[in-house]
Amino acid sequence: MIEPVTPLLTDLYQLNMMQAYLDHGETRVAVFEFFVRKLPPGRGFLIAAGLEQALDYLEQVSFLPEEIDWLQETGRFSAKALEAFAAFRFTGHVHAMSEGTVFFPNEPILRVIAPLPEAQLVETRLINILHFQSLIAAKAARMVLAAQGRQLIDFGLRRAHGAEAGLMAARASYIAGFAGTATILAERLYGIPTFGTMAHSFVQAHDDETTAFEAFARSRPKNLTLLIDTYDTEAGAHKVVALAPKLRAAGIAIRGVRLDSGELADLAKKVRRILDAGGLKDVAILASGGLDEHAIAALLGAGAPIDGFGVGTALTTSSDVPALDCAYKLQEYAGLARRKRSAGKATWPGRKQVWRQYDEDGRMCGDVISVETDHQPGEPLIEQVMHEGRRTGPRTSLADIRVRAARDIARLPERLRQLQPRTEYAVRVGDALVRLTAEVDRRLEEGESNKHG
Amino acid sequence: MIEPVTPLLTDLYQLNMMQAYLDHGETRVAVFEFFVRKLPPGRGFLIAAGLEQALDYLEQVSFLPEEIDWLQETGRFSAKALEAFAAFRFTGHVHAMSEGTVFFPNEPILRVIAPLPEAQLVETRLINILHFQSLIAAKAARMVLAAQGRQLIDFGLRRAHGAEAGLMAARASYIAGFAGTATILAERLYGIPTFGTMAHSFVQAHDDETTAFEAFARSRPKNLTLLIDTYDTEAGAHKVVALAPKLRAAGIAIRGVRLDSGELADLAKKVRRILDAGGLKDVAILASGGLDEHAIAALLGAGAPIDGFGVGTALTTSSDVPALDCAYKLQEYAGLARRKRSAGKATWPGRKQVWRQYDEDGRMCGDVISVETDHQPGEPLIEQVMHEGRRTGPRTSLADIRVRAARDIARLPERLRQLQPRTEYAVRVGDALVRLTAEVDRRLEEGESNKHG
Repeated sequence: MIEPVTPLLTDLYQLNMMQAYLDHGETRVAVFEFFVRKLPPGRGFLIAAGLEQALDYLEQVSFLPEEIDWLQETGRFSAKALEAFAAFRFTGHVHAMSEGTVFFPNEPILRVIAPLPEAQLVETRLINILHFQSLIAAKAARMVLAAQGRQLIDFGLRRAHGAEAGLMAARASYIAGFAGTATILAERLYGIPTFGTMAHSFVQAHDDETTAFEAFARSRPKNLTLLIDTYDTEAGAHKVVALAPKLRAAGIAIRGVRLDSGELADLAKKVRRILDAGGLKDVAILASGGLDEHAIAALLGAGAPIDGFGVGTALTTSSDVPALDCAYKLQEYAGLARRKRSAGKATWPGRKQVWRQYDEDGRMCGDVISVETDHQPGEPLIEQVMHEGRRTGPRTSLADIRVRAARDIARLPERLRQLQPRTEYAVRVGDALVRLTAEVDRRLEEGESNKHG
Repeated sequence: MIEPVTPLLTDLYQLNMMQAYLDHGETRVAVFEFFVRKLPPGRGFLIAAGLEQALDYLEQVSFLPEEIDWLQETGRFSAKALEAFAAFRFTGHVHAMSEGTVFFPNEPILRVIAPLPEAQLVETRLINILHFQSLIAAKAARMVLAAQGRQLIDFGLRRAHGAEAGLMAARASYIAGFAGTATILAERLYGIPTFGTMAHSFVQAHDDETTAFEAFARSRPKNLTLLIDTYDTEAGAHKVVALAPKLRAAGIAIRGVRLDSGELADLAKKVRRILDAGGLKDVAILASGGLDEHAIAALLGAGAPIDGFGVGTALTTSSDVPALDCAYKLQEYAGLARRKRSAGKATWPGRKQVWRQYDEDGRMCGDVISVETDHQPGEPLIEQVMHEGRRTGPRTSLADIRVRAARDIARLPERLRQLQPRTEYAVRVGDALVRLTAEVDRRLEEGESNKHG
């Protein structure tokens, strides 16, 4: 199994708190929301992703009998807690933004409504799932904007942070508009199109490049892309031209060449000229090798005739910003709104909705966050997706999620579509939410003064 | 299963190349080595980690029958290739540095010797495993050096890039000297000690902080650490002092308090004074919240009385350097040394060994990389760990790996133990390796001139 559903994939304190909640009967309904606190430098927007995996987790999460035995052996937990662990299933409701939706700081993208111990136990893994895919979808969207319609392919599995990161980065980047991935397991699990060329080792294993190209072409004639930079890129291009007639005679068309090192803008121009002069105008040039959105923009800005990009490390690690400042916070318990007031980490209390407004051109022009009953003009972005531990509807297809993301990216204000966003999107906090926050603070302060008075 | 062993966790091109190799009988013995090309800014050394997972993978990797069926359905592969996939097992030899060994650029930490298609297919996942753990072990070692003996705990699962990243970061940081992790599954799978405190939501779910502290203490009296920054840190410390006698009467000792926000140096001093004045000199202060090695060094430099640190995002994402420039490259095929000469990515050919020398104080004072038969003075770092697809010896315990890392970190030259390393470690390339490289180049050039001549 690639997406583990064991509740042991959590912080020890969640189990400790679960026992404490059970001991003290603190099992009333809690409301938690997941949101990003602020945008990292250089990001103008984020894209919600990971909801399907989060819902899979919530539908399936439970302790195996051997896990309960192991917890018992640790000697840490009471018999009552172990019984509760054994019986644990997620029975709550979930409200969320659709995957593929553009979102901004302080806007919840997921709300859990469940008995407190359940809502608490799932915290760590829910954050782990939602944070990473949303992070990567936003990074990928920047690359999509920079590539101006050229094909983008995820090459990042090898440097992704583990297996799941590689798979989820393939999924998140596909949502954001990538054409596909090199990771074949992502095709099997998620139906994401896969693309593959050849490696330097293939060329090196043959006595010369032409022999390697021909051997590969005869075995793998479909979508044939030859890697031409193992020894000398221009010489590699000339070999492709020389080989093409022989392959054509065998019914094999060269679809593309890949450049993976060197000064890519300059080499792409030279290779284009060599290919064109050799009658290979239809052969595409794919570039790879340490690329990110800035490198893509610079290559296209320099007029490099590149038709597609393979992007690895910068995508799957979101290399400039490998994490978002995000949180899953208690907003209500036992019918009362709650908030955290820690320095720099204060939160807006209660169950919230986000309404989005569009201008006459259909561009986003402002969001309002308020308590969910404080209806505002615009499109409400959060809707119920799970009831009593079960999805409320069918699984959303990756194709539909991709359409949603493309729609939202197209609707972004132009100044947020720049690699260096020159503005912040307007997100207003509704009056009812401001009033609720003041009420929560008043209650906390009265509680304290009653204690001390 | 947390560590997937399906060969589909790879790039499509590996399967394409495998078919091409089979078609052309290119199944002779290949030698690949994994190494890091250069150190990222701010890193003076790296620590080898992930070998146990790499060997587990190589011992277990094989296609499931349903995966072969699926590959057949894609229509991409010949019957001969599908047969070979179905029969695929890794039958090669592996040489490697022990986990926990300090290493430097261009030094192979793993060598695979296997029939070319096997050695090729496992490339992506081997890099994926070795890169991430080595990356995190190096980051964690920096924190260990900065913390000057204070306890470090991994809090990073929630912002790690997926489940496996969280688990492997717990393992890699433990190797580098962390005391343990909050991730309970890492205790179950790897025997890593776990630590847990309490969350803000626990405090928020109660009507006041003191009630929350007491409830938690009564349910979870062992290793009791109270989180005191939910509303006001100093007020929280006073509540701990006020509560302590009542808990003591119930036989419960407060072990520590945790600060997770605000100006930690200043707050730690104030909290220390409040605790000391309240007779709680033995209560430790644990700090967390966005810490990295620089923040830890600054806090200790400012004299903050902090006894331990919980480190999350900066550790599990290696936030300043979320990836290393590393590669798994063909160094020999069919008895002939090979190299890649791509711009900026040229490699040293052949099967290599690394010899390390120590000065009279036992500090590392220089490595030599050369062909493995070119014996040099010093400690050879690479040894055989797998023969024909099976480990040559018992699994190395995490405790032993940890000892090795501690030994190596202690033996680092002082100037590499700084957060801003002020020197580069001396790694010399042996004469025999220089000669072999020249021979490979001559052979490549002769091959080309014969073709063109």
